[in-house]
Amino acid sequence: MYKETLLMMPGPVPMPETVRNAMTKQAINHRSKEFGDCYADIVRTLKPVFGTENDMLVLSGSGTAGQEAAIGSFAKGKKIVSLVNGKFGERLGLISKLYGETAMLESEWGHALDLEALKQELENGAEVVTLVHNETSAAILNPAEEVGKLARKYDALFILDAITSIGGDTVKADAWGADVTIVGSQKCLAAPAGLAAVSVSQRAWDRLSENRPFYLDLKKAKKSADGSPMETPTTPAVPLFLALREACRLIEEEGLENRIARHHRMSGAVRAAGEAWGLSLVPQVDTLHKASNTVTGFFYPEGVEDAKIRGACKKMGIEFAGGQDRFKGKIFRIGNMGIIDTPEIIATVAAVQMCFKKAGYKLEGDGLSAAVDFLS
Amino acid sequence: MYKETLLMMPGPVPMPETVRNAMTKQAINHRSKEFGDCYADIVRTLKPVFGTENDMLVLSGSGTAGQEAAIGSFAKGKKIVSLVNGKFGERLGLISKLYGETAMLESEWGHALDLEALKQELENGAEVVTLVHNETSAAILNPAEEVGKLARKYDALFILDAITSIGGDTVKADAWGADVTIVGSQKCLAAPAGLAAVSVSQRAWDRLSENRPFYLDLKKAKKSADGSPMETPTTPAVPLFLALREACRLIEEEGLENRIARHHRMSGAVRAAGEAWGLSLVPQVDTLHKASNTVTGFFYPEGVEDAKIRGACKKMGIEFAGGQDRFKGKIFRIGNMGIIDTPEIIATVAAVQMCFKKAGYKLEGDGLSAAVDFLS
Repeated sequence: MYKETLLMMPGPVPMPETVRNAMTKQAINHRSKEFGDCYADIVRTLKPVFGTENDMLVLSGSGTAGQEAAIGSFAKGKKIVSLVNGKFGERLGLISKLYGETAMLESEWGHALDLEALKQELENGAEVVTLVHNETSAAILNPAEEVGKLARKYDALFILDAITSIGGDTVKADAWGADVTIVGSQKCLAAPAGLAAVSVSQRAWDRLSENRPFYLDLKKAKKSADGSPMETPTTPAVPLFLALREACRLIEEEGLENRIARHHRMSGAVRAAGEAWGLSLVPQVDTLHKASNTVTGFFYPEGVEDAKIRGACKKMGIEFAGGQDRFKGKIFRIGNMGIIDTPEIIATVAAVQMCFKKAGYKLEGDGLSAAVDFLS
Repeated sequence: MYKETLLMMPGPVPMPETVRNAMTKQAINHRSKEFGDCYADIVRTLKPVFGTENDMLVLSGSGTAGQEAAIGSFAKGKKIVSLVNGKFGERLGLISKLYGETAMLESEWGHALDLEALKQELENGAEVVTLVHNETSAAILNPAEEVGKLARKYDALFILDAITSIGGDTVKADAWGADVTIVGSQKCLAAPAGLAAVSVSQRAWDRLSENRPFYLDLKKAKKSADGSPMETPTTPAVPLFLALREACRLIEEEGLENRIARHHRMSGAVRAAGEAWGLSLVPQVDTLHKASNTVTGFFYPEGVEDAKIRGACKKMGIEFAGGQDRFKGKIFRIGNMGIIDTPEIIATVAAVQMCFKKAGYKLEGDGLSAAVDFLS
């Protein structure tokens, strides 16, 4: 292709030029003030984005590494209850099963979580609750605050995967009672893939598991981070730290409120387009469960081929996501994470509309106008 | 500082400009031919550097992650024997203890390994042997071939940490009977920190452990890598893959033989300087154990302060390593990994000589001339 593809996926996402350029720096010693200052800057700027004053640790690994670090460090050998209504909740449940006695409370993907069953498990002595806040596989925003309240009521630890909401939607880790909260670098933070940041409450430290994994041991990470300069227990992926620091600086510059409002506006425009098109949203919305504000999913109408639609859009230079696993071929998902703004959203909505038309499918109405109206 | 510090440590190491610049690429979908081709290029170029025709998998994590992936995937629940004569052998032993019943055969750091005790453990049914080939903490090169022979004789799996030798010294994973072999990106490959590549023999796959860790499960990594395009099971650190591909291309361009010869020449020059200075090498060399060819360690003479020497050299713009843990303050180590060549070695040797003089310590002879003579 004569130019780069515009990624409109629920991660990875386009990165600002200054973030990419931060990685070109010559290698530095990671046991140095220079690296420690970088780590400290990341932690300082990310804490308000998490809504936390707890400890924060950055791991050289993907969001999944962050999930396993949380489970392996704090849930090993315990009774765990995992709420599942999509692929990433399922993954958190599968990791939990490796480390403790786990009840997976599975709803249909994109449907409401079973909070009654959760209450039952907590009454029966569950010690840890896991939840994915923003479940991208079904484009649904789960009720973290309510789950946190229940966990706290029964004195269970609450592990909150906010990998794809932090930096793009409201997360109040401390106010919601989240003891361990996770973000991934390549989602709403608009940094390169390869880092996970994890916040940890004192309550969690007081209940540290024994025989934790080695590379993903958060206790070791804390010990190194508590030093001066801040360090990591093993060699960190330095270029990714440098890029994440710059991405965090840009978040601070934009202002968290502005950034979240922008994400809401962009996802709102995509939902407005979908409504005009007459397409069904993937998530089943109710008073507690909302449509995600960082990725929007629609079911394909009967007879519309995923490969045709997404293939034609990709040829135009815009790539968005299909469905994963059981949703493969059945849904498409448009991400608006990170630095995505009006031009990219308008272009994407237009491309979708053009490609449906090209594929011979008549959409109900004019989604492009609806999106433009919404954004005006 | 008005310019970047020259890193003469046993990793991280200076990176070529094209390697650093490879990371500035805009984000791409990692489930794509573009990423798969990058992964395939890395594997194709690294196989001869490992001396292997086995499967090769790249993990988004440090060398330690590679160690834990090897142990967690193939040694979990087994009888393990860990050879230790330095910090990294010890780390491999500590990881082994988390996963299986482990006998750590500890020698003094930098001293010969106890191969008689190894034989005994193998006779007593040890199923896995772990070894660090190039133990940087004591600047010693351990007898991988002999250990491999013993492991094979008793039908044990052989896990070889060649994190700091591959790309800078001869490694023949297949000929030596290494079933799982590990390299780190930020050592002799001169790529950024944050990736580990691991080769795996069919013999190892046939003895896969159960209940492996999630993020570092090599079976999952193989399943994804076997696809077309090649993929990773979870989101990879894409910029680091792009940089590693370029670093591998440069190794191919230089030629592996040339590159190894250069590493031998550079470490030889540092050893020649040390001999002229009258300093003692850290490793106890014998017919099986050699001085490392990628990092050279010397004991400080009585009364010479580590902080003073390394501090003064750092002020001149050159940073090399002190001792770790029990060697702290007692030794210094000059790395020559990756792209280090004559100019950097000469400058470093000169700086050391000047700083000893400045600190008021009279070295026996002229190490600078000895290094120049050696390289002439």
